[in-house]
Amino acid sequence: MNGATRRLRATFGPYTFEPLAERLTGRSQRRPAEKRARLLAAGRTAFSQTGYGASVHEICRAAGVGIGTFYQQFPDKSDLMRLLMDDEHQYRVSAFDALAAKPPGDLASEVSRVLAGSDPALLRAMIEGCETDGRLRDFGRDLRKETHERLVAALARARESRKIRRPALDAKTASWAMLLMGDAAKDPAQSDDVRKVIDILAFAGDDTIEPGRA
Amino acid sequence: MNGATRRLRATFGPYTFEPLAERLTGRSQRRPAEKRARLLAAGRTAFSQTGYGASVHEICRAAGVGIGTFYQQFPDKSDLMRLLMDDEHQYRVSAFDALAAKPPGDLASEVSRVLAGSDPALLRAMIEGCETDGRLRDFGRDLRKETHERLVAALARARESRKIRRPALDAKTASWAMLLMGDAAKDPAQSDDVRKVIDILAFAGDDTIEPGRA
Repeated sequence: MNGATRRLRATFGPYTFEPLAERLTGRSQRRPAEKRARLLAAGRTAFSQTGYGASVHEICRAAGVGIGTFYQQFPDKSDLMRLLMDDEHQYRVSAFDALAAKPPGDLASEVSRVLAGSDPALLRAMIEGCETDGRLRDFGRDLRKETHERLVAALARARESRKIRRPALDAKTASWAMLLMGDAAKDPAQSDDVRKVIDILAFAGDDTIEPGRA
Repeated sequence: MNGATRRLRATFGPYTFEPLAERLTGRSQRRPAEKRARLLAAGRTAFSQTGYGASVHEICRAAGVGIGTFYQQFPDKSDLMRLLMDDEHQYRVSAFDALAAKPPGDLASEVSRVLAGSDPALLRAMIEGCETDGRLRDFGRDLRKETHERLVAALARARESRKIRRPALDAKTASWAMLLMGDAAKDPAQSDDVRKVIDILAFAGDDTIEPGRA
């Protein structure tokens, strides 16, 4: 269980994450867990098709369950979205942690690819959710802090392996700016520009930045 | 009259920008122009205090005019905001055009300062307006294109005077990324980071970006 999930559970209680049914092992209790998984998959589809405005009805219809089942599993739509945001967060964090195993020259492409989202349409719905729902915004902010920390660590390792001893930007500032490029990364037309900019932010050394040249 | 204003007028007609009263010179016609100026100033204050959600009532109260006067001057709140956005655009464009007269080392600080907005709270309200009002969004996109072009030209001049012959990022991509940093520039706590990042985007040369170092 990662830090964000822990915080989420502390705020919303265990029922959000492990409904009673999932903690029981009896065969008769399995169906609620299956319905929950179906609702999560349907939420992913509905949000990515309609945006955060997708209704609980729409999600239930796609999952083939009644509205009562939804509310047995989630307090509200916002809570379901929060779980999907946590999944996306895991995707980012795992990808950043795996950067060390890739050739350092691939960092910019990989970061740009990951920032575009596991599903760009779903990512847009998440951003929309954070803009319109205060609880999602706070949760998103927590996730972002953790993403930032992992990217700082990945960047430091990549610089080390590329022997960049005097980077023009410290890893914290560079990673922060790289995450800011995430909004643009969602647009496939801009992915090449995003990659170029991330490469500069990550690997420019201070020997280029010479005020005395003028 | 700049390009964006021209397009705006083409879309919304001359009455948006020059109500009949302003085109007449008679003394008896001066008061409407004064009221219009008061409404624009009051809109600036109300939007910066309350956000784009500020009501026409609130704006009229601050301007000390009746609601009827408002609708004699502007078709709606969105139209008033559009005029304020055009003012902000003029502020940016003039500042970028004046960059050539400053020492090239000041470019990053100056761009970061301008991106923070003539009034950061008002700029936040403008962004909010563009997120919630489709016409403002389209208008904002047009303004942004023009801002981008002016920044590209300013950056090219600054690089020339700083004798940066082989920049790591072409001026178009660098300016685009610099404008993306604008969102962060609104937050005073981040202004130093924004300045550092803009400096790298603007002036890093390709002699730093050496994949062969690894």
